[in-house]
Amino acid sequence: MSGLTHFDDSGASRMVDVSGKPETARSATASGLVRMLPETRAMILDRRAAKGDVFEVARLAGILAAKRTGELVPLCHPLGLDAVEVRFEPVGDDAIRVEATARLFGRTGVEMEAMTAVSVAALTIYDMCKAVDRAMVIDRIVLESKSGGRSGTYRREAP
Amino acid sequence: MSGLTHFDDSGASRMVDVSGKPETARSATASGLVRMLPETRAMILDRRAAKGDVFEVARLAGILAAKRTGELVPLCHPLGLDAVEVRFEPVGDDAIRVEATARLFGRTGVEMEAMTAVSVAALTIYDMCKAVDRAMVIDRIVLESKSGGRSGTYRREAP
Amino acid sequence: MSGLTHFDDSGASRMVDVSGKPETARSATASGLVRMLPETRAMILDRRAAKGDVFEVARLAGILAAKRTGELVPLCHPLGLDAVEVRFEPVGDDAIRVEATARLFGRTGVEMEAMTAVSVAALTIYDMCKAVDRAMVIDRIVLESKSGGRSGTYRREAP
Amino acid sequence: MSGLTHFDDSGASRMVDVSGKPETARSATASGLVRMLPETRAMILDRRAAKGDVFEVARLAGILAAKRTGELVPLCHPLGLDAVEVRFEPVGDDAIRVEATARLFGRTGVEMEAMTAVSVAALTIYDMCKAVDRAMVIDRIVLESKSGGRSGTYRREAP
Amino acid sequence: MSGLTHFDDSGASRMVDVSGKPETARSATASGLVRMLPETRAMILDRRAAKGDVFEVARLAGILAAKRTGELVPLCHPLGLDAVEVRFEPVGDDAIRVEATARLFGRTGVEMEAMTAVSVAALTIYDMCKAVDRAMVIDRIVLESKSGGRSGTYRREAP
Amino acid sequence: MSGLTHFDDSGASRMVDVSGKPETARSATASGLVRMLPETRAMILDRRAAKGDVFEVARLAGILAAKRTGELVPLCHPLGLDAVEVRFEPVGDDAIRVEATARLFGRTGVEMEAMTAVSVAALTIYDMCKAVDRAMVIDRIVLESKSGGRSGTYRREAP
Repeated sequence: MSGLTHFDDSGASRMVDVSGKPETARSATASGLVRMLPETRAMILDRRAAKGDVFEVARLAGILAAKRTGELVPLCHPLGLDAVEVRFEPVGDDAIRVEATARLFGRTGVEMEAMTAVSVAALTIYDMCKAVDRAMVIDRIVLESKSGGRSGTYRREAP
Repeated sequence: MSGLTHFDDSGASRMVDVSGKPETARSATASGLVRMLPETRAMILDRRAAKGDVFEVARLAGILAAKRTGELVPLCHPLGLDAVEVRFEPVGDDAIRVEATARLFGRTGVEMEAMTAVSVAALTIYDMCKAVDRAMVIDRIVLESKSGGRSGTYRREAP
Repeated sequence: MSGLTHFDDSGASRMVDVSGKPETARSATASGLVRMLPETRAMILDRRAAKGDVFEVARLAGILAAKRTGELVPLCHPLGLDAVEVRFEPVGDDAIRVEATARLFGRTGVEMEAMTAVSVAALTIYDMCKAVDRAMVIDRIVLESKSGGRSGTYRREAP
Repeated sequence: MSGLTHFDDSGASRMVDVSGKPETARSATASGLVRMLPETRAMILDRRAAKGDVFEVARLAGILAAKRTGELVPLCHPLGLDAVEVRFEPVGDDAIRVEATARLFGRTGVEMEAMTAVSVAALTIYDMCKAVDRAMVIDRIVLESKSGGRSGTYRREAP
Repeated sequence: MSGLTHFDDSGASRMVDVSGKPETARSATASGLVRMLPETRAMILDRRAAKGDVFEVARLAGILAAKRTGELVPLCHPLGLDAVEVRFEPVGDDAIRVEATARLFGRTGVEMEAMTAVSVAALTIYDMCKAVDRAMVIDRIVLESKSGGRSGTYRREAP
Repeated sequence: MSGLTHFDDSGASRMVDVSGKPETARSATASGLVRMLPETRAMILDRRAAKGDVFEVARLAGILAAKRTGELVPLCHPLGLDAVEVRFEPVGDDAIRVEATARLFGRTGVEMEAMTAVSVAALTIYDMCKAVDRAMVIDRIVLESKSGGRSGTYRREAP
């Protein structure tokens, strides 16, 4: 039961003390899928070429959310962020892959910032397309990799 | 291409005008899964019985996030909310199901509020357990049902 | 154990459902004291007459905080507010009384908005004077009265 | 001195009480200019046709800011909003005109929401182009028109 | 009148310049009491053992508020935070003591973060119990101790 | 087209990576005008001498907004701030000049923080006086100067 460091010995939640940790270069990348009808996806990709870009709205939502991760996830440390990027890519014939990378030179990792950017970008795609496809699924949000800090580098194994 | 009402004719994004809509009773329920190692899940369920409840932290994160949906999802209307509930339930031997319901007597639906509550509750579970299980997956976030408004009642079909 | 309506039968916290309640005129007044050295209080009162008004900074902090009560107090409903006022008054020779009133025509009471305005106004007085009087005490924050809603009018009894 | 209703008789700032006002359909439109080098403007307009749309980023910033007007402008009422739109248009050979419209069926006007949307959209254009043109000027932010409420319709006279 | 550094010579409020200060290890602990009927307190303590933990909700509210201190207290510096803890303890037969500690390696103290965590945790207890005991009192919020920075260590004297 | 660093090669918006930049002392000053009827300005200046200070409300709004620049301007880095000051000065017989200075020892410039402080202070003046002078104009918001960082010192040329 040792692993859940967000609780103290009495079971009280807490923001873990990182004041003794050195500052190091941190990076994290997360990804997720938004599954939808092929027609819905075609509509998004078509518009992108023409006018009215769903991805750009979702991207900004993801970037803004990454900056507010510490307000959303209760025991996350409030952080500055040195960089955030959100990318989109069609996958198969009915999905869009969302990927986000966050970077910081600091005392704590930025995994949650990357995960939050992916989640809110995916929610925004859902919001913009829900009138035509209410059954969309936000799927497989995972941490792809992270580097920096005491626990070093992590890379998700291929499924 | 008519469906994406969040864009006007020139392709500019916008918050759709709902000022002419009547106020009706709105409700929406969303759900999602957090998949993890059986040991991780056992740790969460054990703690719940003992001390240090991951679910309670995640629940509050979800409720608070639902209230801020309009700040996170750019083209969502800012809303009051009359009720939010977030529930957790073990599924199979390695997953936790998150379900959220939002309610409002108002001019717009609360689907995004329910979806946001599920997403942020799931992110919070990830955050609290990531030190022991970095490979957790946030999966299958969907709208289960909604009622109220011009488009009436929707219920997701069994998969 | 029936009274704590912020928990459901399983002990899960929730935002109570008010969607069935009628909208009525709501009002609430709260108060508190900030106790300090007589010299500190003289400094505040002197400045007010001259230049640099601690009360005006604290007042705005209280008003702004009242508007964000639903973000701070997890199970509070997010509300509009129709009016907020924050007042200050010297009491005895070493205290300042803070009083706030909030008003709303709506489905839920505004007690927490008034209590939050008083608390944050008091914290702001503390912040501005702490360099000269670190031992100040924020004291006796109470609900003075409220009206509207099913439970009707409440007026605190004289102590 | 009667006009400044944001102060009470003692000079204390306050959020004016609107609880007795009826709800009516409110609308407000504001505009402003961002003046820049012709080359800078060409760069923005070229990109729009190609890839990387400054206007879309600025538009979302304006819409999101309109929703948070009550957090930014201390004595504004916190409001829902039924619609927000932000438009851009080249003017002369070195300026971009920003125009925003906000709508609400409610107790208070939405002039500040429209003014805030214009201001933050203009700030975002400045931010995105400042590396190439630090001398840009945000100019002539005005209320173009408003309707609804006791004071009725206002339309700015041609300059 | 020299002490109120939050005003400049003309009486204008300001955020004091700390850019020349060295970064040092900062810590601050604050405390407060929530006084209530013995029956109310018994209800909270009973539930804790059973299901539905008021303290856990209040604790998270306090931690989240500490992270947003710079948004609430106007002249506070916006800070990261390296650690926040909130503790509860029954006192006598009708009070709960709230204590919070904040830590940061940085240029400014974290007294306000600890004071804010205590205040918002206390407000949350009030919110959750007000339906059964409207006369509760939030009492004696004080700075217990702080360390780090030019002014060094402070410890409140026993009353 | 190289200059718009907020877009990557594919035209996607991003928060530029500053993790490799050294921390240096940063400062930025921005200014703007609020033009109004001479009677409106007299009313503001009179009140200042008497009671109810528009400038103090606007000043706090500007300082608070500077702290939240990263939430408002989508591609801005979230920053701490070491100092913020907002000043007001009558100009001619019908304008008020707003000037703000922000300071930070950090990896990115604080131009946007100064520009945002000026904009929101000006919006607040507009809000407080709009009932008596709806035609006020927020004018000529510019960056006056900045120092620190790779691009060094900038000083706006006299117009």
